[in-house]
Amino acid sequence: MTPVKKVLIDCDPGIDDALALTLAHGSPELDVVGVTTVGGNVELAHTTDNALRLRDFLGMSAPVARGSGQPLVAEPVNAPAVHGVAGLGEAQLPAARTELDRRHAVQLIIDALAAAPGEIGLVATGPLTNIALALRTEPRITEWVAEFTIMGGAYTRGNRTPAAEFNVLADPHAAAVVFDADWTTTMVGLDLTHQARATAAVRERFAGLGRLETELLNPCLDFYGKHPSYRELGPAIHDACAVAHLIDPSLMTTVPARVDVETQGRFTTGMTVTDFGSNDLNALVATELDVERFWTTLAAAFQNAEAQLPA
Amino acid sequence: MTPVKKVLIDCDPGIDDALALTLAHGSPELDVVGVTTVGGNVELAHTTDNALRLRDFLGMSAPVARGSGQPLVAEPVNAPAVHGVAGLGEAQLPAARTELDRRHAVQLIIDALAAAPGEIGLVATGPLTNIALALRTEPRITEWVAEFTIMGGAYTRGNRTPAAEFNVLADPHAAAVVFDADWTTTMVGLDLTHQARATAAVRERFAGLGRLETELLNPCLDFYGKHPSYRELGPAIHDACAVAHLIDPSLMTTVPARVDVETQGRFTTGMTVTDFGSNDLNALVATELDVERFWTTLAAAFQNAEAQLPA
Amino acid sequence: MTPVKKVLIDCDPGIDDALALTLAHGSPELDVVGVTTVGGNVELAHTTDNALRLRDFLGMSAPVARGSGQPLVAEPVNAPAVHGVAGLGEAQLPAARTELDRRHAVQLIIDALAAAPGEIGLVATGPLTNIALALRTEPRITEWVAEFTIMGGAYTRGNRTPAAEFNVLADPHAAAVVFDADWTTTMVGLDLTHQARATAAVRERFAGLGRLETELLNPCLDFYGKHPSYRELGPAIHDACAVAHLIDPSLMTTVPARVDVETQGRFTTGMTVTDFGSNDLNALVATELDVERFWTTLAAAFQNAEAQLPA
Amino acid sequence: MTPVKKVLIDCDPGIDDALALTLAHGSPELDVVGVTTVGGNVELAHTTDNALRLRDFLGMSAPVARGSGQPLVAEPVNAPAVHGVAGLGEAQLPAARTELDRRHAVQLIIDALAAAPGEIGLVATGPLTNIALALRTEPRITEWVAEFTIMGGAYTRGNRTPAAEFNVLADPHAAAVVFDADWTTTMVGLDLTHQARATAAVRERFAGLGRLETELLNPCLDFYGKHPSYRELGPAIHDACAVAHLIDPSLMTTVPARVDVETQGRFTTGMTVTDFGSNDLNALVATELDVERFWTTLAAAFQNAEAQLPA
Repeated sequence: MTPVKKVLIDCDPGIDDALALTLAHGSPELDVVGVTTVGGNVELAHTTDNALRLRDFLGMSAPVARGSGQPLVAEPVNAPAVHGVAGLGEAQLPAARTELDRRHAVQLIIDALAAAPGEIGLVATGPLTNIALALRTEPRITEWVAEFTIMGGAYTRGNRTPAAEFNVLADPHAAAVVFDADWTTTMVGLDLTHQARATAAVRERFAGLGRLETELLNPCLDFYGKHPSYRELGPAIHDACAVAHLIDPSLMTTVPARVDVETQGRFTTGMTVTDFGSNDLNALVATELDVERFWTTLAAAFQNAEAQLPA
Repeated sequence: MTPVKKVLIDCDPGIDDALALTLAHGSPELDVVGVTTVGGNVELAHTTDNALRLRDFLGMSAPVARGSGQPLVAEPVNAPAVHGVAGLGEAQLPAARTELDRRHAVQLIIDALAAAPGEIGLVATGPLTNIALALRTEPRITEWVAEFTIMGGAYTRGNRTPAAEFNVLADPHAAAVVFDADWTTTMVGLDLTHQARATAAVRERFAGLGRLETELLNPCLDFYGKHPSYRELGPAIHDACAVAHLIDPSLMTTVPARVDVETQGRFTTGMTVTDFGSNDLNALVATELDVERFWTTLAAAFQNAEAQLPA
Repeated sequence: MTPVKKVLIDCDPGIDDALALTLAHGSPELDVVGVTTVGGNVELAHTTDNALRLRDFLGMSAPVARGSGQPLVAEPVNAPAVHGVAGLGEAQLPAARTELDRRHAVQLIIDALAAAPGEIGLVATGPLTNIALALRTEPRITEWVAEFTIMGGAYTRGNRTPAAEFNVLADPHAAAVVFDADWTTTMVGLDLTHQARATAAVRERFAGLGRLETELLNPCLDFYGKHPSYRELGPAIHDACAVAHLIDPSLMTTVPARVDVETQGRFTTGMTVTDFGSNDLNALVATELDVERFWTTLAAAFQNAEAQLPA
Repeated sequence: MTPVKKVLIDCDPGIDDALALTLAHGSPELDVVGVTTVGGNVELAHTTDNALRLRDFLGMSAPVARGSGQPLVAEPVNAPAVHGVAGLGEAQLPAARTELDRRHAVQLIIDALAAAPGEIGLVATGPLTNIALALRTEPRITEWVAEFTIMGGAYTRGNRTPAAEFNVLADPHAAAVVFDADWTTTMVGLDLTHQARATAAVRERFAGLGRLETELLNPCLDFYGKHPSYRELGPAIHDACAVAHLIDPSLMTTVPARVDVETQGRFTTGMTVTDFGSNDLNALVATELDVERFWTTLAAAFQNAEAQLPA
């Protein structure tokens, strides 16, 4: 039996973040040891509140810590049209009953990694502000982390702009710091996540799950699917793909590459410029998803999560 | 019968420029009324000499004028590894016997377009320096030109850098001027031209052409095909695709888009940022090549060209 | 007796351009062999019309050629608040009776310099678009020119923005091309020209000149002096300083320096970054004006110009 | 009697930082409540060690906390030629006997300000990395701080480059964050600090101070004064000027302005673009030093500091 992997999730819930948290929580392969929040899909106040509500709704035990509400250098951008003003589409989870961790997200990340060197995988599914702040405050986290995966970037085309994916665009300087740090970033970008479409056929596999479906999945995905960019092919469950990579790396092909983040272009800021022919590698870039196994993994984890829902 | 289209070709021969000139010259649909040169694949002295040699070898009557050897603002870049130091691979065409036009390329372009408003199509297969200089010297060329097509750019990934295609990278400011000008640029970029691979099967269709094959096509394509980037799938005959668009626009699908050229990125300078969802359109972007008909068109034109070779 | 220097003036009249032309025309040391126009202080249509009117009013014989109305790459900017909508403040010179040269400014510049290598000084008092276009069209002008002086730039602070002087900001890419070209640019920038203030005391030296005063100087300088930036210390007669340098270089101190033009700053585009300690010199930067002799020179030339006014 | 002001000093000692600390410690008007270190003049290991040694040597009681050794986004730059490899010129202070605070500099800054809202002035005399990290981690420090002063920037010309002063160039993104934050930054830049030259005449006023002179001032200033840029006019005691502003704001004139930090120029990165005419003010910019009173203040404080030296 594979040992359970500890995972720390830095996120900005956000519909697909909510699904990523549910996936992580429901996966027997993972043990979520902490959740940190960042401003992104919606403002920090909402992403933090959503993280707390999701913890209570799902019955997670991990501490939740609030992080940075402002990008490292750039002006904030949000995506309420995609995620709803409060960030979880039409979902109305009960108000949080539990408290935030008293530490800042950056401190929680540093403390957790310092306390268990080599044991914890770090997954970031929002703008990379907290991770960059943690790197500048305590550079040794690159030695302590077991693996590091982000949802973000793209090696062909962006979504928020023709060149840039939202999470990287939302804090391009942080992304530059993160890719330049002394670790290997696994980049699960749009080229991969656009293969993970919650089509009607996929949605049927979640049917009959109970409250997880009716209170979280449906009101999230129904809203998500209405966005113009998702209408044709179905909404892409971006963030869950990054968690999926931690659960089972064989769910996707990754290719070594050099990724540099553009921070000063007129039209290209936030682009993850990906060189597959470089000799100066700093990333593993996800290229192909085993779509069938991905959804099977998701469905199983959701089943588990449903079974663990608190009353 | 379709009327013959007049065409002015601004180029930097260059192996694929040579094929593009041969295609234009051999096409009964086109009448080449001028050839202007620019530094690019190799230095201006070579591209100009090659243009003259090609005119003599093919028996073209159009004037050839020398243009700019230096990009509008940026430092020059060349590609001798792709095209050979002199620019035509292993081809050894006889020294030119005819003279250059006395005018500068920019003046020839302006004069030709001014003299026949609405009649001449302009095709640029090298860096866009001359075209930008012409636009700044005589902005009315945008009214006079019948159509304007470039080989250059890409909407997914570049070749010279991960983000930039060579012709645009070689003079990004000129490309910005060109796309921002008051005309519609048809962009035949890498996404299209990478579909035009001179594979062994393709090469067989040119077999037995005579001197055109032995003295031009073979020594060009043999050299071209050795470049690492072309070894697997065969060399892409980029520039010929732009001429093909003039011959018969139905040879490729084009999609309206907004194209902006990045000029100040750290990693993205020379990128043609392509927004297919924009309301502020300035380009038609070629997306799909009718490969079979393309090669048929090329083979027929090459047959014609061979038949017209001077003794 | 000093031989008369031939001078070609590229300008955007503009109040201080008008004074610079008057100074050049009235100086026995100079022979104005051509005037070329560029968009800048006001739009090209106005600067060209003003140049023609000034030629007729002053009785100059030099050809006037229209140049570029659009910067090399950037968007146009003008300064009607400083120069008036038509460019000459409150001056109402009679409509031009003579014709433009049929050539483009760039061609006139190239032709003139080519025809008299080593004999002609080139002075540019507007944005450097024409000069950059000429350099890219015929790089040998750097060998043919006798000397090259601009009004533009600053080594401490700008005027149009805190970092940039107007002429350089108005076409930063052209300025970059010009400073990077293979010649030495004498930069007469704001640090120098702000020493040439047409104060009330100075204005008195022009009193009683006749039509030159009443029809040109007064309506120009009265308007010019009302600009908020000039109210306290009097209007700076920038462009005349560049012509003064040609008349007598000893009128100002110049210091060798490296000047690079910023083209991609968020807040600094158009800045002439001046390094007096560089080993890679490309400019002579004017630092100190002999104010008394400057105005004496100007007054004498204006006297001459008045004497030569056509009826 | 004026109440004593609490002050937190973020620094990179550094010769002039050492003098600034001495000034602060010796000033009866100030109570140094914390010292935080950052990489800058020399690497973080040295600046931190120097801060500890200075505390012990001077007998300061304030905690010293280590901060960031790497700029927010940019690559590190140092100035060992100015400050010596170890950062204090030829001074050889005894090894530190006391310990660092266990917190990171950013945490110490946040904790101190949070604990005494409105009471503590923050002075930064190095690159602004720690301050930017603190702002992103706890934005409320702008409400808690009593005043905020930096040594850094310039409104005419730089020192490390023609456009940029060293501290700002060393972390331009951090400086941008700091000036954009919701407080007023008092910028004591080169235009001011170049008025504070430790000439021979000035040095005489420190003569006979005892160990402070022989073990700290002399070996620091002797080395400092040898730098080519300081040979003519004497070394500028930059950082002490920022502390002087806290001691007595009337020691210098300050003018309201808008300061923006250039982060993406080719030649201007790190420039503090200063607009004295802006309506969107964010800074008080020091322009003129009361030189005589400045040195009198310094001499008195140094006398105090000498008197308090531990055995």
